[in-house]
Amino acid sequence: MRVKIFVSLKNGVLDPQGKALEQSLHTLGYNEVRDVRMGKFVELNLQAGSREAAEVCIREMCDKLLTNPVIENFQYEIEG
Amino acid sequence: MRVKIFVSLKNGVLDPQGKALEQSLHTLGYNEVRDVRMGKFVELNLQAGSREAAEVCIREMCDKLLTNPVIENFQYEIEG
Repeated sequence: MRVKIFVSLKNGVLDPQGKALEQSLHTLGYNEVRDVRMGKFVELNLQAGSREAAEVCIREMCDKLLTNPVIENFQYEIEG
Repeated sequence: MRVKIFVSLKNGVLDPQGKALEQSLHTLGYNEVRDVRMGKFVELNLQAGSREAAEVCIREMCDKLLTNPVIENFQYEIEG
């Protein structure tokens, strides 16, 4: 099954990359843009016997490697 | 309205970061993981008069700043 994982910084955590992007967008004239936050987007194929097994595996991988649980949140979608 | 933009490398474009992540997951014992691809995830607030105006704005921002159209694709979701 194809898995999409979205990692974003928690609210309140400083996001310099997002700030830089926001300033660049304002410089380009897009002044209607606010609160830009940058995150990571991971796509992978996972062989798992069931959706439940896949979810357990995804949460483990996120906690161990893909995210820093102190400052980051994650969400995921499972397709197929 | 809240906008989520997902930027991913096109198929066929080498993704060293994804490869490194895949190898690390295998080292941790997650051998059922394949084809890991890393991308970017941008969240922002956009003030626009209509959904159509927002879509035009998002596509322009992606083409000009958020993505490299030669090697990257993007998808987006608009909420609210």
